[in-house]
Amino acid sequence: VIECVPNFSEGRDAGKVRAIVEAIERTPGVLLLGWESDVDHNRSVVTFAGEPEAVMEGAICGAWKAAQLIDIRVHGGVHPRVGVADVIPFVPLKGSTLDDCVEIAHRTGEELWRSYAIPVYFYEAAARIPERRRLEKVRRPGFDGKPPDVGNIAAHPEAGASVIGARGFLIAFNVNLHTADLSVAKDIARAIRTSSGGFPALKALGFALPSRGQVQVSMNLTDFDQTPLHVAYEAVARLAAERGVEVAQSELIGLVPRRALEQAAAGLLKLTPFDAQRIVETRLETLQRKPPHLH
Amino acid sequence: VIECVPNFSEGRDAGKVRAIVEAIERTPGVLLLGWESDVDHNRSVVTFAGEPEAVMEGAICGAWKAAQLIDIRVHGGVHPRVGVADVIPFVPLKGSTLDDCVEIAHRTGEELWRSYAIPVYFYEAAARIPERRRLEKVRRPGFDGKPPDVGNIAAHPEAGASVIGARGFLIAFNVNLHTADLSVAKDIARAIRTSSGGFPALKALGFALPSRGQVQVSMNLTDFDQTPLHVAYEAVARLAAERGVEVAQSELIGLVPRRALEQAAAGLLKLTPFDAQRIVETRLETLQRKPPHLH
Repeated sequence: VIECVPNFSEGRDAGKVRAIVEAIERTPGVLLLGWESDVDHNRSVVTFAGEPEAVMEGAICGAWKAAQLIDIRVHGGVHPRVGVADVIPFVPLKGSTLDDCVEIAHRTGEELWRSYAIPVYFYEAAARIPERRRLEKVRRPGFDGKPPDVGNIAAHPEAGASVIGARGFLIAFNVNLHTADLSVAKDIARAIRTSSGGFPALKALGFALPSRGQVQVSMNLTDFDQTPLHVAYEAVARLAAERGVEVAQSELIGLVPRRALEQAAAGLLKLTPFDAQRIVETRLETLQRKPPHLH
Repeated sequence: VIECVPNFSEGRDAGKVRAIVEAIERTPGVLLLGWESDVDHNRSVVTFAGEPEAVMEGAICGAWKAAQLIDIRVHGGVHPRVGVADVIPFVPLKGSTLDDCVEIAHRTGEELWRSYAIPVYFYEAAARIPERRRLEKVRRPGFDGKPPDVGNIAAHPEAGASVIGARGFLIAFNVNLHTADLSVAKDIARAIRTSSGGFPALKALGFALPSRGQVQVSMNLTDFDQTPLHVAYEAVARLAAERGVEVAQSELIGLVPRRALEQAAAGLLKLTPFDAQRIVETRLETLQRKPPHLH
């Protein structure tokens, strides 16, 4: 089983989002795990899983539906983007590897160009140009000045480009702050992200949320064993408190592995060291798999 | 499957604790989930599970081994106790009910008196006298002045008495504080416990931990939907901070249901409202149980 978490550049028109989600869900073999839209970002994230071939087909159907419904030239939103099917990551779940996801990413990219003339840039484990491993380098205005990995134009006029990749489980975690001062979110994001010397495996941006009168520290945790949820949360809360600002609430975009939440609970409750065998369901599962008296 | 979590009045002599644990573990059909000892409490908690008959047999074997090895007259420790096999609660896990546990509690109590002349008091759902539902009422010095529920002496000279009951899952959760001032732990325990007007379904006592130079707020959460782990933790941390004291660490005694940790993570990360379907494993399990397109 692999997972796909495409980001589409539409988060305001519920009918268009629904049509994209349905195009994915109708694909045979696809298990739709969820989706969500953000009005300020004007962006939707869909999560689905299945066998590699089914997931590839679902990603292509979703991208094509997005290309029919969205015009990137008139898109407005606070989140950076390069296309209507902006980012398409494939993630290994049980029984699959990152290499399986790289192969599916490449085949999906080639198909998007061949069938729909949408040029594709490969990132993370699927990158063919080493400098493209990091998504934010690919997504800067005008891209990186080099031609796309698939296709001979930088961007399709209306659909833009797609950045397709393979990566480990990414936790998209936002902390919203009780202030309208965008500089607070931007300062905190800069202080904590890997690229400016903060925590490892952590990306962060500061956004305004005008519809809520708040600002947001929007984070991607690309390896929660390196920087767990609670470490990121506590850093944001502490830096906000130093500026006299309180946390309003947090939100997960897409899904979270169970172990990441258990790890966060243990960290925040100061249950250190924590042994997952303290969890009654985990302990029973472990014992029932082992012969008696060998535990 | 039901669970049994007996508390024995021995936490210093590892050989004696090991012998009691082995007496339980050797019982056919018993799945030993874990055990732990505390030197200051001079007390050990064993957790095991299995079919009701096997669990009853395991509890009786453990109590008899404790009666052979421990003399309650010379026992010293900070935790209140009335016997060597001090408290024996039965807890319903999957496929069993509280009523099943009440029946097993009563049968275990009758067997302890008949075979070993240890008198028994029934508490919580197994109580035959309504005033004995609350464990702390049974366990006060001299008991409650009434005869035991089984037996015609208040206590066996060396083994004391056993308080046997049936209850829902109880989370034993201690928060240790960086101070040697016992009044801090006692004040906080008094402020938060149900019996003095604090949180519902929460018992709390303050203990000194002389071996660590700390004090402990020792809690039982008897219904974590009423008072979750994070609510108890945050209350202790806040009341300690008001007294200039920091939390050193927390500890779980015995096991914790997975949902209680997920709930705590969501609460502490301010993921409100939290939907367990955000957890990728839970979501996949749910979808795989449902026919497609009906979610």
